[in-house]
Parts: sequence; C-alpha cells; structure tokens
Amino acid sequence: MLELWFDFASPYSYFAAEVVEAAAARADVPLRWQPFLLGPIFQATQGISDSPFNLNPTRGRYMWRDLERQSARLGVPFTRPTVFPRNSVLAARVACVALDAAWGPRFVRAVFRANFAEDRDITSAAVLADLLAAVGGDAATLALATAPEHKDRLRRATEEATRRGVFGAPSFFVGDELFFGNDRLDAALDWARKA
Amino acid sequence: MLELWFDFASPYSYFAAEVVEAAAARADVPLRWQPFLLGPIFQATQGISDSPFNLNPTRGRYMWRDLERQSARLGVPFTRPTVFPRNSVLAARVACVALDAAWGPRFVRAVFRANFAEDRDITSAAVLADLLAAVGGDAATLALATAPEHKDRLRRATEEATRRGVFGAPSFFVGDELFFGNDRLDAALDWARKA
Repeated sequence: MLELWFDFASPYSYFAAEVVEAAAARADVPLRWQPFLLGPIFQATQGISDSPFNLNPTRGRYMWRDLERQSARLGVPFTRPTVFPRNSVLAARVACVALDAAWGPRFVRAVFRANFAEDRDITSAAVLADLLAAVGGDAATLALATAPEHKDRLRRATEEATRRGVFGAPSFFVGDELFFGNDRLDAALDWARKA
Repeated sequence: MLELWFDFASPYSYFAAEVVEAAAARADVPLRWQPFLLGPIFQATQGISDSPFNLNPTRGRYMWRDLERQSARLGVPFTRPTVFPRNSVLAARVACVALDAAWGPRFVRAVFRANFAEDRDITSAAVLADLLAAVGGDAATLALATAPEHKDRLRRATEEATRRGVFGAPSFFVGDELFFGNDRLDAALDWARKA
C-alpha cells in the first residue's frame, strides 16, 4: 500500500497527483490518497506562516522555473497561479469526504488542475461545486464536508501527519517508511513491492 | 557542459560526486567540478548559521534515513558522520587548486568518502594530506591552497554561486540554467544535450 499525503497549496503535490495513479498501477501497489494541511506543520516545526518559497525569494525563483521544466518533462500543464499559496482548508475538507467515493481521486486532480493549470480560486465554494459537478461527484459533498461529523477529519489527518514525521508535501508512506517529494515516488514503490 | 557545484559538508553532494562522472560520460557531456561554501549562502538568504537539517529535527531525522536508503539504491557506502556539518573551508580551498590537475576529481571523491563513509575529520590538514597522497595528488597542493594567490578562489566561487541563484547543494548548471539536487541530474544532462 502506498499512501500519498498532499496539500492542495503545494505545486509539487499537483505533479504527484497527476502521475501517482499510473505509477502505482504499473507497480501493482494499492494507493490511498490523504489530504492534509502543511501550514500548521510549517508553523510548528519552522515557525513560519508563509510558503518557504515566498520567504526565500532565491529558492522561490528557482521553484517556479523548476515547475515549468517539470511540467514539460512530465507533460502536465502548469500555469503559475496569481495567488500563492492559496488557502487549501475548504478544498481539503471536501476532499476528505470525496475520497470516500470512487470519484474522489478525479476530484482531487480537478482541484489541483484548477489551482495550478487554470489559476482558479480553489478557496471558493462555487469553484469547488463546479469541480464536483465536472467529475460527476455528489453535490452534497460540499455541505457534508463542513458538517460537524466530517469537519474534523482534516484536523485529525494533519495531526497524524505531524506524528508520523511529515514536514513537506507531497509525502509518501509505505507502512511507517516516509518518502518526501515527488522524486522519491519510484523509491517508495520499490519499497512497497519489497514489503 | 555540466557544472557540478558542491560543498564537502553536504551529504547529497557526496552522492552527486559519486555518480556524476559516469552519468556525464554516458550523456557525452563535459563536466566541470566547482567547490563552494553553502554556509555564507544559508546565512545571507535564510539567516541561519547551522544546517537546516539540524535546525529542523523532523526534517533532519528524515534526511539521515533518506541518505541510508539512497546509499543502498546507489550502491554508495554511507556512514552518518559523528560531526555534522563539518567545516569544509580548508578542504574546499584545497579542492579549488586540486581541480587544476587531472587527479582533482579523485581528490574530491576521496574527501567526500572520508567525511561521509569513513567519518574522518576533513577539517584536518593531516587528513587532507593523507587523501592527497592516496589519490596520487601533489603534496604541495595543501600549502598552495592557503597561499595568497589561491586562497581567494573559494570566496570568489561562493560569490559567483550567490550571484547565479544557488541556494543549496549539490547544484548543477547548464549555461545559466540551474538544477538543484541530485534528483535533477538527469534533467540537467538532458538539458545539456538539447543545448
């Protein structure tokens, strides 16, 4: 089993979401998608309340260039969003519920594309409703995601990520073995096959 | 032409140094080795005076585990050094001069192995003299490296790295195109072939 832990605000998580399903299928490894929030983890471990890519402009300039190049290499469309990072709380809450359904991964990819290929405002409930409709999802998911019995799932996921040593996104787990970043996807799948 | 910019204190630079020559030869791309100091860049861009892996223990724990796994994947021996990061100034000054000679890359790999496979103190002139002898290098290199006409080369290299947008190690350049991290070596070589 491969777990993909992602944050909708993270551009490298977008690339992971685009490639992980085919890669896991080729490796014959089952896949679990898990949204979480990186913000509270950055705050707790590094004391920062913005993306490290904004706080270190030299690294930020590199990242945007790297993302363009990776987009070309992977054949995945990418447009630098006009707002970065976009607040991912609502989208992630909806994804927690959406992933109970078979169309969940389609919704996850649609949210990532909205943010990182179409520059749409994924903090907007109207945009998320559009995306739910576009992937054939249940329109009630949006209301359900903010209802008391589901709202807490994202907070618990973020606590679990913290407990398991996650410090960035995307992160992959195979059992307790953590692999950070899209560049470790192959290593994670090899680990899963040996496990 | 592929440029490898490395710091002897950086464990991922060690892996780059172990694999870059064969990879560049396979791609038929000429290679230039360039030592520099990451410390002043971390200080200037992030205001930190220790390794980010020490300052963020969660990330640090991950890094040591990742290095073990990468060691196994690459077939490159790795032992966690008892001192991290080791001050790389003297070794890098010697490397600046050593790389004028054909045995320079052998010396660079010997220093990295001393630090990251043999846990030897690469801040020691005696250790560096040993390594020079082991690779068939010129024993006079050590004295030459700290002589006025050569001592400044490392400082100038670090200034150049800063000017060109380097923020970590290893970094690869193909012309002005920067690729950060060992995981971008293939992308850098592809870029060099297309250039």
